[in-house]
Amino acid sequence: MLINVPETVVADALRGMAAAHPELVVDVENRVVVRRDAPVAGKVALLSGGGSGHEPLHGGFVGPGMLDAACPGEVFTSPVPDQMVRAAAAVDSGRGVLFVVKNYTGDVLNFRMAAELAEDEGVQVATVLVDDDVAVTDSTFTAGRRGTGATLFVEKIAGAAAEEGMPLERVEALARQVVAGSRSFGVALSACSTPAKGGPTFELPDGQLELGVGIHGEPGRERRGMMTSREIAEVALEAVLEDLPPRLPVLVLVNGAGATPLLELYGFAAEVHRVLDERRVPVARTLVGNYVTSLDMAGCSVTLCQADEELLRLWDAPVQTAGLRWGR
Amino acid sequence: MLINVPETVVADALRGMAAAHPELVVDVENRVVVRRDAPVAGKVALLSGGGSGHEPLHGGFVGPGMLDAACPGEVFTSPVPDQMVRAAAAVDSGRGVLFVVKNYTGDVLNFRMAAELAEDEGVQVATVLVDDDVAVTDSTFTAGRRGTGATLFVEKIAGAAAEEGMPLERVEALARQVVAGSRSFGVALSACSTPAKGGPTFELPDGQLELGVGIHGEPGRERRGMMTSREIAEVALEAVLEDLPPRLPVLVLVNGAGATPLLELYGFAAEVHRVLDERRVPVARTLVGNYVTSLDMAGCSVTLCQADEELLRLWDAPVQTAGLRWGR
Repeated sequence: MLINVPETVVADALRGMAAAHPELVVDVENRVVVRRDAPVAGKVALLSGGGSGHEPLHGGFVGPGMLDAACPGEVFTSPVPDQMVRAAAAVDSGRGVLFVVKNYTGDVLNFRMAAELAEDEGVQVATVLVDDDVAVTDSTFTAGRRGTGATLFVEKIAGAAAEEGMPLERVEALARQVVAGSRSFGVALSACSTPAKGGPTFELPDGQLELGVGIHGEPGRERRGMMTSREIAEVALEAVLEDLPPRLPVLVLVNGAGATPLLELYGFAAEVHRVLDERRVPVARTLVGNYVTSLDMAGCSVTLCQADEELLRLWDAPVQTAGLRWGR
Repeated sequence: MLINVPETVVADALRGMAAAHPELVVDVENRVVVRRDAPVAGKVALLSGGGSGHEPLHGGFVGPGMLDAACPGEVFTSPVPDQMVRAAAAVDSGRGVLFVVKNYTGDVLNFRMAAELAEDEGVQVATVLVDDDVAVTDSTFTAGRRGTGATLFVEKIAGAAAEEGMPLERVEALARQVVAGSRSFGVALSACSTPAKGGPTFELPDGQLELGVGIHGEPGRERRGMMTSREIAEVALEAVLEDLPPRLPVLVLVNGAGATPLLELYGFAAEVHRVLDERRVPVARTLVGNYVTSLDMAGCSVTLCQADEELLRLWDAPVQTAGLRWGR
């Protein structure tokens, strides 16, 4: 691994973010990443966070049009309430803060406690829980479904709504609409290795894949011998579309787990489009890349988000972050 | 691997690019990626290409402010002159085409032949050769130094110059200035696997690293036991700065080889900044991410580019491509 020692991996990465991104305020000691112009007057703030190892999520999504702050925990470990309370205080303009929380037990508890503490300090907080992964219910770190790729859609769309000056209840409602209309399914072609463990966190023999894997390598639905890109697209989309047949055009995220080459991801994107065409699901936009990763896991996931005209407009709105950037 | 069969990997990826990027014209059969509004009246065109497996280089850098066209070859194999001639004809507005060529024997020969053929058809062609890798001279596929990370600086800066309407000779001169002022050094922590081979292309035992590796896994200067991120930054920058002590502020590319997590790359970026601070090398801008990759290789490289005011202005100019995007 390209590290110094396991104990400093997160702090080292935050020092690097501070060096590379003068448009962010990175508090390395307290582990909070904030957009430099926060609090933005008259704007609802968006705050997220979670275990490290999923970069660019969430720190890479801090900036105009997306998050106001992110709180990174240790690798695959929830951040603590102190981080969130500190971040909320730093970004609240008086119009309230939306917490975007992936559905893992630790994150849910810690963000809940942080919401109470922040409210004691006079910050109005709303929370949206992201639980888009159709693969399994109740998993290693989760009661209910896991939160994965839809987090990007929530942060982007709610972030654009907040940037336009919408009030907290409207930003929250849009975030809930994204969650309700989004579904994901992931596949691992190799296990991931954490710095603390220094090797794979689970066993996945060469030539096998884990269908429905979680973003921490949690078990999925089934282990199988190698499949083609085309077969994987069929299985993943079958699971997603069975759970929520779309009634609207979809935003598509073809996401890499971290170690799968972009060359392969684009080939997979072609198969995803082919399956959606066959099933007559209209595609509004497609994003291909490593956005919600699992360290050095090889694999991919697909997320669909049903988008009405407003969601599509908010998706297309400008965003200026390290990990996602378009428009002005 | 996330593929169908090795034979269709490049075509599959191009189908995916076409599906995800309506702003590009992707000719899957002839393997040419062109910006949709080409030829742009009054603008010098930029054309590049090379073996596939280094994505987002080059197809991901096609768009306003960077390349007008890219020609992908098979994995780690030069594209052929027919592709380049076809692409040149598609993008030439009458003001000429600059070929950006990484210094590998196959690429050099094929682009040279393409330049002659294109000129026979009345297209004015200039060529800039990128050879920034200080690690070795003469390597598996190369006479002289290999072309690596500086390619991104050349394509971005010359692309911005072309977008501003500068004439071919000025765009070419700026590209040469970037090459003259750029140096790179790369390190592999694991070998990469090509689809055709179905496994690693070279042997690198666990716990060993290859200092000075090429972007196709070509041998470097030395193989060593594992080093810290800090030690790797020191060795890489020592090699770069010894070869060309900077007299200007530098643009820094902290590049991932493909399978190294962004979390680790940012930690490495912190060490790169630390070394540059110690050596009093002023940093103008830093870009961190997987931009010039080697399929699923774990590792990283550092590229420095000395930037005067004009180069810095052109670096900051807007760019709208799949892989690099900022400004308007």
